[in-house]
Amino acid sequence: MSEVGTRPVPPGLTESDVQRAIDRLTSELGPEKVLTSEAELREFRDPFQVQTSDDFTASAVVMPTTVEEIQAVVAIANETKVPLWTHGQGRNNGYGGPAPRVSGSIIVSLRNMNRVLEINEKLGYAVVEPGVRWFDLYEAIKAGGHRLMVSIADLGWGSVIGNSLDNGATYMPYGVDQASWCGMEVVLANGEVMRTGMGAMPGNKTWHLYKRSLGPSADLMFTQSNFGIVTKMGYWLMPEPETYMPLWLRLWNDDDLATATDVMRELMLDDTLRMNPQIMSGTLLAAVMSDRKAHWDDPNTPIPDDVLDTIARELQTGRWIMRFALYGDEVVVDHRFAKIKNAFESAIPGAEVWGAKYAPDQIADIGDPSERVQGGVPSLDLNAMTGWYGGEQGGHIGFSPVLPMTGQDAIAVRDLMRSEMEAAGLDYMAALIPINARSMIHVTMVLFDTASVEQSERAYAACRRVVVEAAKLGYGEYRAHLDFMDLAAEQYSFGDHDQRRFNETIKDALDPNGILSPGKQSIWPAHMRELRASTNGAVV
Amino acid sequence: MSEVGTRPVPPGLTESDVQRAIDRLTSELGPEKVLTSEAELREFRDPFQVQTSDDFTASAVVMPTTVEEIQAVVAIANETKVPLWTHGQGRNNGYGGPAPRVSGSIIVSLRNMNRVLEINEKLGYAVVEPGVRWFDLYEAIKAGGHRLMVSIADLGWGSVIGNSLDNGATYMPYGVDQASWCGMEVVLANGEVMRTGMGAMPGNKTWHLYKRSLGPSADLMFTQSNFGIVTKMGYWLMPEPETYMPLWLRLWNDDDLATATDVMRELMLDDTLRMNPQIMSGTLLAAVMSDRKAHWDDPNTPIPDDVLDTIARELQTGRWIMRFALYGDEVVVDHRFAKIKNAFESAIPGAEVWGAKYAPDQIADIGDPSERVQGGVPSLDLNAMTGWYGGEQGGHIGFSPVLPMTGQDAIAVRDLMRSEMEAAGLDYMAALIPINARSMIHVTMVLFDTASVEQSERAYAACRRVVVEAAKLGYGEYRAHLDFMDLAAEQYSFGDHDQRRFNETIKDALDPNGILSPGKQSIWPAHMRELRASTNGAVV
Repeated sequence: MSEVGTRPVPPGLTESDVQRAIDRLTSELGPEKVLTSEAELREFRDPFQVQTSDDFTASAVVMPTTVEEIQAVVAIANETKVPLWTHGQGRNNGYGGPAPRVSGSIIVSLRNMNRVLEINEKLGYAVVEPGVRWFDLYEAIKAGGHRLMVSIADLGWGSVIGNSLDNGATYMPYGVDQASWCGMEVVLANGEVMRTGMGAMPGNKTWHLYKRSLGPSADLMFTQSNFGIVTKMGYWLMPEPETYMPLWLRLWNDDDLATATDVMRELMLDDTLRMNPQIMSGTLLAAVMSDRKAHWDDPNTPIPDDVLDTIARELQTGRWIMRFALYGDEVVVDHRFAKIKNAFESAIPGAEVWGAKYAPDQIADIGDPSERVQGGVPSLDLNAMTGWYGGEQGGHIGFSPVLPMTGQDAIAVRDLMRSEMEAAGLDYMAALIPINARSMIHVTMVLFDTASVEQSERAYAACRRVVVEAAKLGYGEYRAHLDFMDLAAEQYSFGDHDQRRFNETIKDALDPNGILSPGKQSIWPAHMRELRASTNGAVV
Repeated sequence: MSEVGTRPVPPGLTESDVQRAIDRLTSELGPEKVLTSEAELREFRDPFQVQTSDDFTASAVVMPTTVEEIQAVVAIANETKVPLWTHGQGRNNGYGGPAPRVSGSIIVSLRNMNRVLEINEKLGYAVVEPGVRWFDLYEAIKAGGHRLMVSIADLGWGSVIGNSLDNGATYMPYGVDQASWCGMEVVLANGEVMRTGMGAMPGNKTWHLYKRSLGPSADLMFTQSNFGIVTKMGYWLMPEPETYMPLWLRLWNDDDLATATDVMRELMLDDTLRMNPQIMSGTLLAAVMSDRKAHWDDPNTPIPDDVLDTIARELQTGRWIMRFALYGDEVVVDHRFAKIKNAFESAIPGAEVWGAKYAPDQIADIGDPSERVQGGVPSLDLNAMTGWYGGEQGGHIGFSPVLPMTGQDAIAVRDLMRSEMEAAGLDYMAALIPINARSMIHVTMVLFDTASVEQSERAYAACRRVVVEAAKLGYGEYRAHLDFMDLAAEQYSFGDHDQRRFNETIKDALDPNGILSPGKQSIWPAHMRELRASTNGAVV
């Protein structure tokens, strides 16, 4: 751990090693692409970190704009042994933001590699660089006059490639099983440029159309990984449907979640509903719409049930509210809407399902941001929830285990999370997001005030605890916060951790100097492996 | 190459090495699980090989029945350095059958690991061992009274896991993007048992429900690969729909293929059609229904166009005929059928679309095997096509490039294949199988009489030639025949073959002795790599 104010240095290296790397980068790429001042680096820290901590601090940020520059950066890292940490946009909020696992790493920010390289309307796909945001891809589709839609994440500032590589959720039909990607280009640790799948054949016409390779298919080895730097990705786009119908389901009782989950599973399994809904606790939607202080004074005690019921009624959020949508020919949408409405309302007393139909041209003008997101129109409106505690100083951690899509599992995870959060004096807030008809991610939104070191520390401690408690019940995280990467991976211990050993065997073979994102998802290069062992999930 | 009658020996080893391996296997597993007689081994050769060739010949076959026995087999291979070659059922007809790439390898046949370990009706999945055939899984579903359907391949004798790992096509909605798999168990070359995805967490509830891992997702690294021996796989099952409607589209002109492909793409992109159709040349269906001699005498000249037109009319196959199907609520099926029928019939003069609706209980009694296959009911009926030349001695090679789903590409590949096959004196026969809305596989069925060495050699030579010619046009094989594995992989040369180098770097790290299926899809262990270099696609 470095002193505040001095440049952090990765373990085993010296300040002059880091300086040499920065000098080499500056000379290769030009000074305007290498950031080193404290003010510039501040933007690349975890925005919600405990304010007294200086963990996860980069020594510099390099912003290449071409594949060749990335190759040069990789060569310099191999030469100087200073590790890199890559992001597309770095909008990884709730999971550590753009910050590196190993302090002193040089961040490779691909924010300026932001070209939409191709949009193919006939075959329905785009090819993007890693800095391309949802905003950028959406704008490129509109600017080209294409009748195509892109399945997006909640916040428009995120990177298409970055979100895809972190297995992030998107909500339209192609978001099911996170299946929008097709065909990548990757700079490996040895500097070679590899194309995955059919892209390995020069001039092949199906690189972004067919997902497998002749031989093993490596694409998903680059998700949540440190095996390469992805520089291009094909992303499938859906033709505009005749009708788009965003829907809501509102539930008034906390335990209605169980039946709603079971009904939803059946509707997804029989293909009546093909997209990724989001079941939000009433408080989560309340956090978008309002300020906590309006409902409950004490920031250090959780809001009690009777007040939660009052909020549910006053803001008309219900105790749970699900956003979802139908896409297709109007006659099919009408049939499905009637079926869905009947299924939920007949199974759950008091449940309500409603929605309205839109033509594709009308989606951008819909008032509700959730309804726009599911229609592929990006914004930052949903970021408002982070201000629940602390307003502009508000922050959050995402704790996100995967569970079977059954009512029983939904209740078990809710109960665990609610009791752990409330024991820490925090409100329980959650979004349950199906990723397919069989499983969903319970995103526990652990909101806190970053200006309160005490509350922040309570939030972090609660998250550390639930990593272990959830695993005991058979639920594992789909994506881990920087602070808990080792601890989360520690739970995946089958065969004395042979999945991790498999990954690290590959890591050592592909990246013998360990220069690419060491520690990412607890994959450590050989010479840093003791950092995991000695810390067991705590920071370096 | 070994002399006929003597036991083949892998390069670099001696007969006594092989004998030692066989002795060790016999002592560990028992003599009944180790096959060595010439008569027994004959069943494990490529059934359609040129009859004078003794390439691809195993020295023995071992048939373990447990994961522990597979671990013992791997340990013996590491000890003796005698390589293994794995199959589930080995029904890899058209691509080399069960035979090993390197003569003298010991085949690990998993035919007797044939337990259906679990069927979960609520969440819609099965867990199977690698010897489980489509027949077995279908029967297990029926025996358990489950209202579930399994997306199957054309021939019921195939292994569920084997077909999945070879990226084989199945036809129901879950066959789109070959997406039925979820969660595997694998014995690695070092003998460790790894579970992929969420299975790496002991007791995790979503191993067969959620496809990604925390960290990199390795599952698809085991497709068409020699990185491990898959011992268990989750396979998703679809709830029975209200209505099943198998459909046919018949086209009378050879060039109608272009428009039909474009119409189909639009219907698949807008989700009107969600499954994998099969567009067969009229001759292919004729080969199932009839004998070539009934139409054309000379086995060494291709059937000319006017006779093809006569066959098309007499057998009512058309020049092209597409089988496909709808699944879902009856009102949705009705809407989609009307839309589909109108789309094809209005775009293509003379085209006809027809079909009939069935309840799930009626599918097993449908007379037409294509209509049963798309409804998940396995048989061997479609194997009849192999008898086109030579009856029971008939054989075939599958040459199967992937192409964009456009009419222009369909015609380009048809023209290449037809001209090359006819130049070799063979009939052009094909099945074009969409794998998603954007790409399809052109399975060229190269039929010949295995009793004719001369005709067999012509067929093999033609296939070798088109591997290269198709690649020049930008079309690469999705799956390569044993005889052309090196040549097919040779075409994937981007970055001086860095996809192959990436795979071989991983191969060397995971399997330093090179014991698992050396040469599979041209991934060679370090000590055998010169076999590829020296042969460039010819056999060892």
